[in-house]
Amino acid sequence: MQSLRYEHGGNIYEMSNEYGGEQYRVLDFSANINPLGVPESIRKTITFNVENLANYPDPECRELRNGISEYLQVPANNIIAGNGASEIISLVLEAQRPGKILVPAPTFSEYSLAAEKFNIEIEYFELKEEDDFKLDIGHLMAGLPKEIEAVILCNPNNPTSQLVTKEDLLEFVAYAKKRNIFVIVDECFIELTEGSNLNSAVQYTDKYDNLFIIRAFTKLFAIPGLRLGYGIGSSNVVKKMWEKKMPWSVNMFSCCLGGVFKEEGEYLKRTALWLREEKQWLYEELCRLEQLKVFKPQTNFILMKILADGVTAEGLKTGLASRGILIRNASNFTFLNNRFFRIALKDRASNLRLVNELKSILAEE
Amino acid sequence: MQSLRYEHGGNIYEMSNEYGGEQYRVLDFSANINPLGVPESIRKTITFNVENLANYPDPECRELRNGISEYLQVPANNIIAGNGASEIISLVLEAQRPGKILVPAPTFSEYSLAAEKFNIEIEYFELKEEDDFKLDIGHLMAGLPKEIEAVILCNPNNPTSQLVTKEDLLEFVAYAKKRNIFVIVDECFIELTEGSNLNSAVQYTDKYDNLFIIRAFTKLFAIPGLRLGYGIGSSNVVKKMWEKKMPWSVNMFSCCLGGVFKEEGEYLKRTALWLREEKQWLYEELCRLEQLKVFKPQTNFILMKILADGVTAEGLKTGLASRGILIRNASNFTFLNNRFFRIALKDRASNLRLVNELKSILAEE
Repeated sequence: MQSLRYEHGGNIYEMSNEYGGEQYRVLDFSANINPLGVPESIRKTITFNVENLANYPDPECRELRNGISEYLQVPANNIIAGNGASEIISLVLEAQRPGKILVPAPTFSEYSLAAEKFNIEIEYFELKEEDDFKLDIGHLMAGLPKEIEAVILCNPNNPTSQLVTKEDLLEFVAYAKKRNIFVIVDECFIELTEGSNLNSAVQYTDKYDNLFIIRAFTKLFAIPGLRLGYGIGSSNVVKKMWEKKMPWSVNMFSCCLGGVFKEEGEYLKRTALWLREEKQWLYEELCRLEQLKVFKPQTNFILMKILADGVTAEGLKTGLASRGILIRNASNFTFLNNRFFRIALKDRASNLRLVNELKSILAEE
Repeated sequence: MQSLRYEHGGNIYEMSNEYGGEQYRVLDFSANINPLGVPESIRKTITFNVENLANYPDPECRELRNGISEYLQVPANNIIAGNGASEIISLVLEAQRPGKILVPAPTFSEYSLAAEKFNIEIEYFELKEEDDFKLDIGHLMAGLPKEIEAVILCNPNNPTSQLVTKEDLLEFVAYAKKRNIFVIVDECFIELTEGSNLNSAVQYTDKYDNLFIIRAFTKLFAIPGLRLGYGIGSSNVVKKMWEKKMPWSVNMFSCCLGGVFKEEGEYLKRTALWLREEKQWLYEELCRLEQLKVFKPQTNFILMKILADGVTAEGLKTGLASRGILIRNASNFTFLNNRFFRIALKDRASNLRLVNELKSILAEE
């Protein structure tokens, strides 16, 4: 079959094809998914609703939006749901149609792909390795070209795992408002930072109508297979997006998940605990490998650079794949090179296995 | 919550809102779904795969395409899958970018909405009530304006329930090829005509590279809630569509349904039997109501026109809704007016109830 353009993490199917592995037994560090797995209430919702697949999903996702509204304390009219964050990214650009956007990079490639679709010009703002890829809001404001009409910030940023503080972000949004610049903040990983929603700008979409937030159920609730993203913005922006949206793009199961935040309090607590412990532990373990430079993570994944001579991310990926481990070669992110790779945090046993396999492979080189 | 633009059939959520009904107890004649319900093998596939939601769906839908390939005997490289037929409609227009399209109407409104999204000009070719809304291919060819670059045919057509024969269709495609016109045929209901795939042009996408077929699992397998459409065209066209497609727009459950055609032989037989019997029976019963003009159906839904003075489709819809029955007011289809409505075929008991309620309401007028 023809090979397509997808080079994201989580492609266990490609791996089974290439390495002959059994797709569901691969230890997948390439996708940044909560290792606590699919929450019980979501499994139950699906099993309970199988019969109802014979009905169209609610095109307006009312129940879902009401649940999100309660969870984030924002009005349901300020919320739009979509088929994963991908649809939300595409819709907000389609509705806003900025002539030119600025994107700090390296970052998630879907922003550029969506922008290209609508012939939107893209300029990159380079995040520097010597700053550990942290975004300096002062620099960003100082260097913002006149013709920029929108900025897309991924917060925390993929693949660098760096977080911009809420204070810095709001300073930027206020500045952007004065310059009539629309700010899109992708918070798909914000609930997997320490502090979770306390780091979020979601409460400020009422105050700043130039602010739009992208979210997803994907990472937090470990359901990339189900497809559910959403966005929060001023009711004006959201209304324009609904007008552009394909009907029923959110499937019926996803439409039923509005209650999950309330039902999964225990799961969310366990997630926070796991995150705090494993992030620190794995970071420290990896720092001991002198062939690697480890960028201190602020969410559930870690960017690394290979320092050993002659070892590339692709080589490391192939080596690990033969041992049943999948990592994300990060060399195709803008401004990164063939030395960079990304791994997700998993449970302790898996993390330990990764560390040991990395040690063993790097020692061989 | 704000009211949105959706005016399709199957919106039981809107009905529960407006009439205070319990959404899952509404007898829904507005959505044209196989009343045999969700097939057993699909229910099992979903239950079995709930845990695997923690994996991303295969972005290339390999397993699914292989299943479709075997079912229709077309190469997997000529197949693209999408989030319902809606995504396929949108993608083929985005990839082909015709400057102006011709659409016989009344027909499914999503073609126009998708075309507008890409600033494609639309011209309608009027299907006449006096011809029972049948499409005359000779007329279509004779009246095809020079500047038309693509034609979209819904076959059988929604809401008219009229089928163009394969011979007529192929004659048109051959003619269109000479004039360099791209032909998109929406066959979402073709498996719900007598003869099923024998009426389809799907085998001819290899011979005619200007032919593209749209299909869906939605109606045949009663899974509008799951979202699964696909398209078949020359590998060139399909490749261009993959390049435009959002990754993972087909959820993991849908990606697992490639085997359903083989596994559900019995279901497909029962479907064919039901269709033949109920289509004829319900048509004859409805013809007895002298306040209605009934257009003879060729698939699983029936278009009707109210002849009684002073009764509108909206009035009838409201009257039936108060009795727990939902029909499709068809007045918003291009070239139809406030006298037209559409109903789906359901099981005998439901069909009988519809006939009786219609009788009773129309007698009151």
